[in-house]
Amino acid sequence: MRSLKVADATGGQDFSTWALTRQARIEQVLDQNLPSANIAPQQLHSAMRYSALAGGKRVRALLCYAAAEFCETHNIATDAAAAAVELIHAYSLVHDDMPCMDDDNLRRGKPSCHKQYDDATALLVGDALQSLAFEILSQPDLCLQAGEQISMLNILAKASGSTGMAGGQAIDLSAVGKPLTQTELETMHHLKTGALIQAAALLGAINGSSEQVAAVRNYALNIGLAFQVIDDILDVEAVTSTLGKTAGKDASSNKPTYVTLLGLKHAKQHAAQLYENAIAALAPFGDNARRLRELANFITQRSF
Amino acid sequence: MRSLKVADATGGQDFSTWALTRQARIEQVLDQNLPSANIAPQQLHSAMRYSALAGGKRVRALLCYAAAEFCETHNIATDAAAAAVELIHAYSLVHDDMPCMDDDNLRRGKPSCHKQYDDATALLVGDALQSLAFEILSQPDLCLQAGEQISMLNILAKASGSTGMAGGQAIDLSAVGKPLTQTELETMHHLKTGALIQAAALLGAINGSSEQVAAVRNYALNIGLAFQVIDDILDVEAVTSTLGKTAGKDASSNKPTYVTLLGLKHAKQHAAQLYENAIAALAPFGDNARRLRELANFITQRSF
Repeated sequence: MRSLKVADATGGQDFSTWALTRQARIEQVLDQNLPSANIAPQQLHSAMRYSALAGGKRVRALLCYAAAEFCETHNIATDAAAAAVELIHAYSLVHDDMPCMDDDNLRRGKPSCHKQYDDATALLVGDALQSLAFEILSQPDLCLQAGEQISMLNILAKASGSTGMAGGQAIDLSAVGKPLTQTELETMHHLKTGALIQAAALLGAINGSSEQVAAVRNYALNIGLAFQVIDDILDVEAVTSTLGKTAGKDASSNKPTYVTLLGLKHAKQHAAQLYENAIAALAPFGDNARRLRELANFITQRSF
Repeated sequence: MRSLKVADATGGQDFSTWALTRQARIEQVLDQNLPSANIAPQQLHSAMRYSALAGGKRVRALLCYAAAEFCETHNIATDAAAAAVELIHAYSLVHDDMPCMDDDNLRRGKPSCHKQYDDATALLVGDALQSLAFEILSQPDLCLQAGEQISMLNILAKASGSTGMAGGQAIDLSAVGKPLTQTELETMHHLKTGALIQAAALLGAINGSSEQVAAVRNYALNIGLAFQVIDDILDVEAVTSTLGKTAGKDASSNKPTYVTLLGLKHAKQHAAQLYENAIAALAPFGDNARRLRELANFITQRSF
């Protein structure tokens, strides 16, 4: 892995500067690790870069960096982990947008991959982005103890698979038009988005103490669910131009959401409670957990 | 990973018994490592099992086992590697059969995954089988030195991604209706099928000496190409009922093949030459390389 200078200590930075620095950093790490569009097969590589370098808030990378800084273990492996998680997320969006899944033509305000290229390319882009995530995280020069690196790979694989993200998408598909209880909806979302969000934080905390890891796990579980509740709220409240994807999509496709289940007011209260739970998990750690707290606020502040 | 008793020394077995034993073994390893269809999401797990336990010759697993026995390093990690490679292969078939790719309704004589289930399920099955491959190979209890395990994961990830199998499929798609040179066709096939076949053998040989690994690499490169040439020959010569997939598909879809490029006679000669190259790579190793030689014969004997 091409090495980037590890950022200076950032205790004095405000959150906005911290986040912008980390967002720029993950773009650079991804750019360096995605094959050039000049390398064959050119169209596949061009489409992989189109899909994985499309920006976004990079919430998962920020969680990984914040957890690593919380545990004071930020190193070159943190970059690899943040990139791997963002690549898994990017692949899931490419496949999720395809006609046989959500059939969405817009992603972050641009044509989704299968619209910009074609369905076959989008299928292969997702497949190859998943492989690349595991390739980056299995590099031999990540300066980790090998056992820890294997644990990271196993965490990422479990979070991505049939009892993680892919499983959540399967439940989501089968739930269309069906009434779900709040518990069933929560299980679905915990798999579909929560598992990877939790993995992002746990990969950052790979060298933390058992108390730190437990706190990060609890924090990420709650913030992952809050993230999804807010996504449902935004789907109702936002207009397509500000959301960067087709608004109202979930409601119009008869998918169960927190808003349809709880109503808008109670969905916002539920998100607020999940946020409080996440913050409470960090209580013993004082200012060391500052970035994780700020990040919880960043993820949730937009809608309640 | 649930442990299976490592097979007894098999020096005296004929090849057929050896192969049947290993084929039964990989079915059992896959069965144990694929989530039960009783575990949620049930339909996804049912479809994963349908696609990954569909039998077949298990050539990649046999290569992995034969290479491990050649290097006298067969252990529990060999089972994990063989299963991981077969899962990557199974996922590629599921995605390759989808309407936006080859649009094939038959696979090994049964409805392909998207016909038996639906397109969305097939997409998620492929995605989750890929994750499962990396999950199995990143288990903490494979009795390997951790550095070797990371190398195995990296070999598998590279062989699967955009400069391996997925890249080969992208080149294959873009080549439809275009004239290719033999070199271009060979590059495409080396990526599309050769990379994973070579990875299967290299994962088996992970603990071999540098001479053994070099021989296995050279052997697998040639046998991987021979395998593809023969696949092209079979596509022309076989009927659908014996091939277990739709015969004549490649020719009718205007894909370049070794047969269209070289003609049937020269394609068979080319396969024979590749077979000879593979056997030559094993020459210094005498009877230790017996299973690899027999496997080369098994892979190629049907058509020349």
